[in-house]
Amino acid sequence: MLNPCDAAFAARLSRLVPEGTLSAPEPRHLEEPRARWTGKAGILARPRTTAEVAALVRACAADRVGVVPVSGGTGLVGGQIMPSCPAPLLLSLERMAALRGVWPEENAMVVEAGMILADVQAAAAKVGRLFPLSLASEGSCRIGGNLAANAGGTAVLRYGNARDLCLGLEAVLPDGSIFNGLTRLRKDNAGYDLRHLLIGSEGTLGVITAASLKLFPQPAARVVAMLAVPSPAAALDLLALSGDRAAGLVSAFELIHRMGFDFLAEAGFGLRPPFDPVPDWLVLLELELPAGMEPEATMAGLYAAASEAGLVTDGVIATSEAQAAELWALRETIPLANRKVGAVSSHDISLPLSAIPGFIEAAPRAIAGLGAFRVNCFGHLGDGNLHWNVFPERGHGKAEHDGVRDQVKRVVHDLVHGLGGSVSAEHGVGRLKVADLARYGDPGKLAAMRAIKAALDPAGIMNPGAVLG
Amino acid sequence: MLNPCDAAFAARLSRLVPEGTLSAPEPRHLEEPRARWTGKAGILARPRTTAEVAALVRACAADRVGVVPVSGGTGLVGGQIMPSCPAPLLLSLERMAALRGVWPEENAMVVEAGMILADVQAAAAKVGRLFPLSLASEGSCRIGGNLAANAGGTAVLRYGNARDLCLGLEAVLPDGSIFNGLTRLRKDNAGYDLRHLLIGSEGTLGVITAASLKLFPQPAARVVAMLAVPSPAAALDLLALSGDRAAGLVSAFELIHRMGFDFLAEAGFGLRPPFDPVPDWLVLLELELPAGMEPEATMAGLYAAASEAGLVTDGVIATSEAQAAELWALRETIPLANRKVGAVSSHDISLPLSAIPGFIEAAPRAIAGLGAFRVNCFGHLGDGNLHWNVFPERGHGKAEHDGVRDQVKRVVHDLVHGLGGSVSAEHGVGRLKVADLARYGDPGKLAAMRAIKAALDPAGIMNPGAVLG
Repeated sequence: MLNPCDAAFAARLSRLVPEGTLSAPEPRHLEEPRARWTGKAGILARPRTTAEVAALVRACAADRVGVVPVSGGTGLVGGQIMPSCPAPLLLSLERMAALRGVWPEENAMVVEAGMILADVQAAAAKVGRLFPLSLASEGSCRIGGNLAANAGGTAVLRYGNARDLCLGLEAVLPDGSIFNGLTRLRKDNAGYDLRHLLIGSEGTLGVITAASLKLFPQPAARVVAMLAVPSPAAALDLLALSGDRAAGLVSAFELIHRMGFDFLAEAGFGLRPPFDPVPDWLVLLELELPAGMEPEATMAGLYAAASEAGLVTDGVIATSEAQAAELWALRETIPLANRKVGAVSSHDISLPLSAIPGFIEAAPRAIAGLGAFRVNCFGHLGDGNLHWNVFPERGHGKAEHDGVRDQVKRVVHDLVHGLGGSVSAEHGVGRLKVADLARYGDPGKLAAMRAIKAALDPAGIMNPGAVLG
Repeated sequence: MLNPCDAAFAARLSRLVPEGTLSAPEPRHLEEPRARWTGKAGILARPRTTAEVAALVRACAADRVGVVPVSGGTGLVGGQIMPSCPAPLLLSLERMAALRGVWPEENAMVVEAGMILADVQAAAAKVGRLFPLSLASEGSCRIGGNLAANAGGTAVLRYGNARDLCLGLEAVLPDGSIFNGLTRLRKDNAGYDLRHLLIGSEGTLGVITAASLKLFPQPAARVVAMLAVPSPAAALDLLALSGDRAAGLVSAFELIHRMGFDFLAEAGFGLRPPFDPVPDWLVLLELELPAGMEPEATMAGLYAAASEAGLVTDGVIATSEAQAAELWALRETIPLANRKVGAVSSHDISLPLSAIPGFIEAAPRAIAGLGAFRVNCFGHLGDGNLHWNVFPERGHGKAEHDGVRDQVKRVVHDLVHGLGGSVSAEHGVGRLKVADLARYGDPGKLAAMRAIKAALDPAGIMNPGAVLG
């Protein structure tokens, strides 16, 4: 049983850290984007050094006080707030946002966990390098949270998830000890990979305080196209064709259903799709090319081959950076439109690629008996990752479906699980999917996870209630 | 304290598995390539199914009998044999070598752990795909061992280490439970990444029984060159230049010192270098190109740019597959020549790229006081991974230096550690580097490793004595 982070405990903490480190939390530290939960207030700590983080965690371990790591607060599964008592210490890394070092010739950079993702990208660009992690929330999410949640985003197809972009970590473990693992090495087989265990553990096994990140050369050119495809199956064939013709150069392959454009209009975003009428299925395809390949000609060649194979029926190729940005804006504004329309149930799922067309066909039928819905299906098809979101019909509110929300989710998740997919593709487990993990997780894996959690955090102080419940 | 795998215990095991599963081990199950240790005999089990593996491990857990997983036996750090008593169960996966499934359109394949790496590569090639893991021992090492050791090899620069090529695992954990994690998903954030914890744990946390692997499109073309460079620093500048001009397309970047060619001659291999006289430093550079890039012209353009920048002084570009294979054969035969010459001490090290020239300059000086040596320095420069091996002078035997071997190793490893490098880059810890891990490992990480090991394997039955000792 945990003890509350009360005034008496705060007074003890205040002797361990500089004045100004502790305060009452602001509203932003207690909110999450879906407004499903409000965090329990407790005390907010904003340390400036890893040693201060360690001192705070050590004290919490000694007194069995919960610690909730706070990063950018953009997570969609409630991993960043603890709604139930006893009140925790909210440990925000926002003052630890320094660039500790950059080695462009090594394609490596060491940053503190509180650095905003867009600042990480900018610091890389400043030395002529690319840090490819890219998400809708990059202007406010922080790299420590990205790593804790193993964030995905739009560049996974070419560059991998957040964990694939991390060479090493510095973290404070649940007993307050420091893991000094800020290596810039590409190969290091000296013992168990604690880095990968911490990445994706959503703050339940420790607090990431800094990271060594992989950088990449800037591609010589980028080319973006929006292509109309006759079906999701055709989109998958187009993905394979793109991979065969441009091995290693496809940097994004996003599927968009027409409903996304309907929602952009309905939500009042002034973005116009480049097709009229809008086809049912579109693909946003991006190639990153080395010197020596002509961008438009390469994309046009791919288009011609796809057209000949019957995989595309129409398309536009951006001929300027501005046009490319417009095409991307269509894709990236869809989540905002979704929020305005208001989903009954949102599903961040991944599937084996070959199971996707069957899922897209079967899923609407599976929920049809539960009400009259609209489905907006879009996402990172190249990664097998769909955001398959269920909305009320136009003129109806999501509240009308409150009674079946859990059933909708269950039906969709059961279908995904049955097809060998994951119901937590890129957003993580947080608090939203604790029951899903227990239901769908492999028993052998769950038992091992519990054993690891108990071994590293016997008092259960780190992000209590998240992931394992 | 563990119990021996004696006749009485074998009799109990024999009731759990089909007849013919258990036998006495053959010599190959007790040997390792460096002939430093001989394994304790015990009983050999060669199960045919994951359920049989689970039954065997469960029985060993119940009776506290050690289990040594046996894969291809090619490991260089003694992870595959246990020399000290009590006798363990040798668990060979050699009969579990089936291809469980291949999905070329998903770039995924599921194989059993006992499949030989060359057979994995061939199974991928058969469906027009590439499985890029490539090592000198690929004709006899097995994929389960490759994953347990997180093997590296020559294609890491473009495709990553073995862990980066694995989508999911099936494994038997130390209590005999099965981890069913054979996902083909590119994104799956449902809980802790047990896959990455098992990969690189060298059989101390469980036995890998099958793996889901990433495949890649076959590149349209490959082009190989051997280039003379004025210095290691120039080689690093050439690496950066190659990355800038051919982002994502550099598939191998190997550094070779002239000593490697001297050893090829000394050891009687009839391989001739393409330069006379042989320059001090050479780079083997390979590009994998998509359709639309002309291989020889691309390499020639890179050569011209490097030449203008003073980074190369001479070079040959292979104009046929046969020539490319000849250049690769030079590189890949060096380890065999090393073995014939006989090293005083071999070092599988990695360094931050920018620290490499300084290391190459300082290390010979650091050991100069310990004797008269020759150094053969070669390796995967693109990954910061050098094989920096110390040999006696011509006409002398390594035995003359027996008295200083440990000192040589210590001096080299201290230098590497001081420069932020790893003394176990791609070969792992095994039994050879247990003391190194204890000496150089981060205390926070070591404590966490011990806690994880104790949590998952409280009796300490899995590969006793490896990694953590």
